[in-house]
Amino acid sequence: MKVAIMGYGVVGSGVAELLNKNRANIIKKSTQPGLDLKYILEVKDFPGDPNEGLIIKDFETILNDSEVGIVVETMGGMSPAYEYTLACLKAGKSVVTSNKEVVAAKGYELLKVADQMNVSYLFEASVGGGIPIIRPINQCLAANEIKEIAGILNGTTNFILTRMINDAMSFDDALKLAQEKGYAEKDPTADVEGHDACRKICILSSLSFGRHVYPEQVYTEGITKIDLADVEYARTWGGAIKLIGRAKKLDDGRITAMVSPALVEGHSQLAGVEGVFNAILVRGDATGDVVFYGRGAGKMPTASAVVADVIDIAGQCNSKKLIAWEDGGDDYVADYKLTQTAAYIRCQTQNMVAALKEVESLFGQTQPLTRQDALEGEFAFITGLMAEKDLVGLMERLTSAEVLSFIRITDY
Amino acid sequence: MKVAIMGYGVVGSGVAELLNKNRANIIKKSTQPGLDLKYILEVKDFPGDPNEGLIIKDFETILNDSEVGIVVETMGGMSPAYEYTLACLKAGKSVVTSNKEVVAAKGYELLKVADQMNVSYLFEASVGGGIPIIRPINQCLAANEIKEIAGILNGTTNFILTRMINDAMSFDDALKLAQEKGYAEKDPTADVEGHDACRKICILSSLSFGRHVYPEQVYTEGITKIDLADVEYARTWGGAIKLIGRAKKLDDGRITAMVSPALVEGHSQLAGVEGVFNAILVRGDATGDVVFYGRGAGKMPTASAVVADVIDIAGQCNSKKLIAWEDGGDDYVADYKLTQTAAYIRCQTQNMVAALKEVESLFGQTQPLTRQDALEGEFAFITGLMAEKDLVGLMERLTSAEVLSFIRITDY
Repeated sequence: MKVAIMGYGVVGSGVAELLNKNRANIIKKSTQPGLDLKYILEVKDFPGDPNEGLIIKDFETILNDSEVGIVVETMGGMSPAYEYTLACLKAGKSVVTSNKEVVAAKGYELLKVADQMNVSYLFEASVGGGIPIIRPINQCLAANEIKEIAGILNGTTNFILTRMINDAMSFDDALKLAQEKGYAEKDPTADVEGHDACRKICILSSLSFGRHVYPEQVYTEGITKIDLADVEYARTWGGAIKLIGRAKKLDDGRITAMVSPALVEGHSQLAGVEGVFNAILVRGDATGDVVFYGRGAGKMPTASAVVADVIDIAGQCNSKKLIAWEDGGDDYVADYKLTQTAAYIRCQTQNMVAALKEVESLFGQTQPLTRQDALEGEFAFITGLMAEKDLVGLMERLTSAEVLSFIRITDY
Repeated sequence: MKVAIMGYGVVGSGVAELLNKNRANIIKKSTQPGLDLKYILEVKDFPGDPNEGLIIKDFETILNDSEVGIVVETMGGMSPAYEYTLACLKAGKSVVTSNKEVVAAKGYELLKVADQMNVSYLFEASVGGGIPIIRPINQCLAANEIKEIAGILNGTTNFILTRMINDAMSFDDALKLAQEKGYAEKDPTADVEGHDACRKICILSSLSFGRHVYPEQVYTEGITKIDLADVEYARTWGGAIKLIGRAKKLDDGRITAMVSPALVEGHSQLAGVEGVFNAILVRGDATGDVVFYGRGAGKMPTASAVVADVIDIAGQCNSKKLIAWEDGGDDYVADYKLTQTAAYIRCQTQNMVAALKEVESLFGQTQPLTRQDALEGEFAFITGLMAEKDLVGLMERLTSAEVLSFIRITDY
């Protein structure tokens, strides 16, 4: 059986490198006598590259070559990655991808086609880079009912927040540093606005709960509004602000899912995750909390996850499907505002006495927070647990202070 | 296909419970039309138990029933668990176990028999309880060369150390508390002397590096000598003392392996692992460091790992082996004293000026540590990196002070 790679960028070239380097090991774990790289589809030329001779420009060459049994899609972006993937699956080729955008938007459809064609569509590399997470959820936790899943899913935003927390850098300076280090794109929107984390929580919840969740169904809030005052209050409270993607199963079979900054307590396994690292917490009814930690991005970690999927497909004795889930539907994701949560709230007032009195009468018992160098008229507190829509309602009724920050608090 | 359980204790009864509860899900992931529990081998009676009717006293019943394709061994201990496992494998039945003692001592032999008979011998539950670790190492990291593996592998000792660190409890008091809470056995030797962690690092290194490591080849040191003074010095240094099992691949193909208390820096993912939790760090050449965290013991977490293995076997389309490694041999494990390490050393002297001068002349540059309430004549320091045998040699040459503690420092 032969392998083709579509997209010879950072990840794709890492895949080629690992496939060559681990050839003997891969064949040992495989049911195939050989498993060689035959084509690399790439618009650019790579003169002098060791794989220069494999580079082709025409997708049809891969599609029409019956020797090619596994296609690695590391092109990124929706189109033509989606169309090529669909065509390959329909042609009876298994596809392995690191493309979270395609999986999050089209996973259900592509898995269904893979199933019909008796081939596989695998995407271990789409979440958590080199952290094994898709396969452990799918297999190791098979005897569990997963109740909740939450994680630091985006390394760029975690790098920015870490610099804000450890070095008191402003968001803008930390973003600039991330861009200089190559952790953030020139246009950082997908990362800092939470879209990347949103795609990943879609994939994780689809897998964990068995029905597809689409990005537009997930409330998504980025980190651009996080202020150093919030970072400092979080520290005095005994925790840290992290961008958390999470999904939870409800008793009625539906789920809630969201991406937003959240306060994580200091003793949480998520609190100590620094820099570009990712961590994913899976809460199962039998296992309790299990956390997977590692590099969430990068050439070789991501490539190693892709190659592990390739090995898995090559090691199957027939092409039975490894992953499958059902369609979601419009009503599957419940309004996140019905979720119970505690929250951190920072306010500004002209009349501290009146404001604190009003907060007490509206919110009942709260935990006041203090920080060094608090501004004149500034105060912050932690609320009790209530439905988010009730919290929002109370904030709207507050007249003697302006709410500057509202950050949810996690229970993991 | 039918399943038999040998040993209806804590884990065995959890397995029976999960098999019944997840029956539909298990069959969905299986190639078998049914997968029912047929026998439970147990010397005790369980009047009124929902599975009372399945309990049998005679192992031969399981061995001779050709309907039984998967045998779960949750008896614990070496004998007769080992003999029964061997007999089942030879009879063409796959075996799933949580028994680390048998896997650590006989894994190579049993895996070889399983291979010959074209059945599986799986033991996800033998390390890390409910944490998926065996399967991720074996599959997800297939495209990596694993360089090193290290972990907090024993919940009992981690509970004791956590109480010593957080509450300044003495070792004896913390052990007593662990016994009261049911985390430690009446005879705590296997835990506190490191034997349990030793078995687990044997299994992990056999799997990671491909050749069997036997418990007697691994230098093993428990936590009974850890003093609150050491705990306090570790804190002032900025870290914590943990019982770490670890194995490392050497350039010549051999490995080193040991279990011992170790100083872990505060920002390490292992430092924040508290109470009965476990964490395992896998250092791969492509992935970098990946950490798996969760409950290392307990009825349902361990049972869920056993059942995941059962599902894996039932889901295979033929009985090809899932895990295999080679024999190790006498020379495979190198002398741990050749390993490079930095260390924490605590001393007692009658002549502080002379002692500090001698330390400087012997060890060169060191990092002195201080603590509140240090005893008269007490001092402690961190050495540079050198071969452990050289460190030991230097300590032996020290005449003006007595070495009270020597604790290695990790680099993860």
